[in-house]
Amino acid sequence: MIPFISRASLSEQNTWITHLSAAMPDEVILPFADLTAEQKQQCDIAIVANPDPEDLISLPSLKWVHSVWAGVERMMHELSSPSFSIVRLVDANLANTMSEAVLAWTLYLHRDMPTYAKQQVKKSWAQQPMVLAQDRRIGVLGLGELGRVSAQRLVANGFSVAGWSRHSKQIEGVECFHGKDGLALLLKQTDILICLLPLTAETKGLLGQQNLSLLPVGASLINFARGPIIDDDALLSKLERGELSYAVLDVFAQEPLPENHPYWRHDSVTVLPHISAPTHPISASEIVATNIKQYRLTGNIPHAVDPVRGY
Amino acid sequence: MIPFISRASLSEQNTWITHLSAAMPDEVILPFADLTAEQKQQCDIAIVANPDPEDLISLPSLKWVHSVWAGVERMMHELSSPSFSIVRLVDANLANTMSEAVLAWTLYLHRDMPTYAKQQVKKSWAQQPMVLAQDRRIGVLGLGELGRVSAQRLVANGFSVAGWSRHSKQIEGVECFHGKDGLALLLKQTDILICLLPLTAETKGLLGQQNLSLLPVGASLINFARGPIIDDDALLSKLERGELSYAVLDVFAQEPLPENHPYWRHDSVTVLPHISAPTHPISASEIVATNIKQYRLTGNIPHAVDPVRGY
Repeated sequence: MIPFISRASLSEQNTWITHLSAAMPDEVILPFADLTAEQKQQCDIAIVANPDPEDLISLPSLKWVHSVWAGVERMMHELSSPSFSIVRLVDANLANTMSEAVLAWTLYLHRDMPTYAKQQVKKSWAQQPMVLAQDRRIGVLGLGELGRVSAQRLVANGFSVAGWSRHSKQIEGVECFHGKDGLALLLKQTDILICLLPLTAETKGLLGQQNLSLLPVGASLINFARGPIIDDDALLSKLERGELSYAVLDVFAQEPLPENHPYWRHDSVTVLPHISAPTHPISASEIVATNIKQYRLTGNIPHAVDPVRGY
Repeated sequence: MIPFISRASLSEQNTWITHLSAAMPDEVILPFADLTAEQKQQCDIAIVANPDPEDLISLPSLKWVHSVWAGVERMMHELSSPSFSIVRLVDANLANTMSEAVLAWTLYLHRDMPTYAKQQVKKSWAQQPMVLAQDRRIGVLGLGELGRVSAQRLVANGFSVAGWSRHSKQIEGVECFHGKDGLALLLKQTDILICLLPLTAETKGLLGQQNLSLLPVGASLINFARGPIIDDDALLSKLERGELSYAVLDVFAQEPLPENHPYWRHDSVTVLPHISAPTHPISASEIVATNIKQYRLTGNIPHAVDPVRGY
């Protein structure tokens, strides 16, 4: 018996329980609310999607939880030093979907779609100067699974790609930078910056006044990671002054983005409702099932999130 | 000595003459207006960009002309049975740029960018259902160089791709249809239709009421070929009735698109100013130079446009 613990709507919880049960016919998956007192005493695993931390704390035998999401920073924040391990979803399909979104909105900027949309409103027929992909310098922040696959997809489609991560990495066809000095070098040579960093104490506000000022005049920005990595006031002021030309934002400090937020009406901002790489319940359920079967067989808990690094 | 013959602006003509001269230092490239009567008698080659047919007819020794454009249907139409061959630009770079545009606007539709743009205006935060690329059926009309490279690029990026051409072709990873019956089969299974056909007597109006009705309800259309291949009234009526969901149009029967045309303000149409694959003067000049050098050396005229097929 494995509880599914979530603050999502009941219909969304039921969807997950259906797909998880189909992927693990040998296990009984129950909504947390349906657990008996005895079951709460026993259960060693939980599957979670934005769980209430109180629910988790009420399970004394819990060894580990499997999130159906890739991002678990809210959980990490709400649970100070949990007694159990937290495993996040690592889904090859997710990286593929994210890399498709990275490519789609990179091409959106590369082929001047925002400018042509504005021209259409004014019935203006004007050809923007053509830039070859090989002359468009893309900078990818974060070279984990999502960043690596995205950078490789951009390379395969002809772009000139550099990447940055905390520690040194090597990716074929991608100029890799790391550390604080590496970040400055990458930003200085980037036309379109793509943020795929995890949200941690170190990345919060990383794209603020100082770092955004290192980008060449006219550069653009795509944030598919987490809202608080960007300092919104700094970004808005760069856009106002024309130092940055455009921002595609899919994630925000508060979601849904509040109605009075200036991003909604800004003509150099595309607002997306957190859709770059939605979790696909069928594919995610299969991954969770594989990890749980392996644990039942061997007792080994899959690679867990490091509570210090936060990812 | 080779004349450059064009109805383009003088500054555009000068740009071409500069790049062509740089690519062929052994040849003298002159604007048509600068030719002496004697030079007119002698010249066997001309380089053209939308030439006045009268200028061409005034050159009695002309054996062939090289267009710096890929599309030569206007020339073919204006010159009935010319005594010289017409060679159009076949530029691998052009096919690459076109395939990039095909991918860019396919992703634009696939990832619901028009819907998210409308939602932003209404400050609406709503996630559209996610469709995997492998479940999105793309149909490419025209499997010449541009169609083939575009279809392959779509396959490489995970889409389910079919193609259609007049005569049977084979492209790895692409389900190929041909002939009239093949067209109906392709249209019936296409979610996003991409038109890359040459404009000929047979393709004019090909996408009219009857053929557009074969597309599944909710299908979309991208036209990167020539305007008259689409019957505009039929397309507008399909969009009005919601039988087709969206059209991305880069080419029109009249260009620039007239100010009073309903496409400009239609909220299910993206109007682009003929920008899918602009000719790059440097790359085009190098190709023209290679063909002319080869001719000077061997006397062989490069593969010419078939006056009957029209491409």
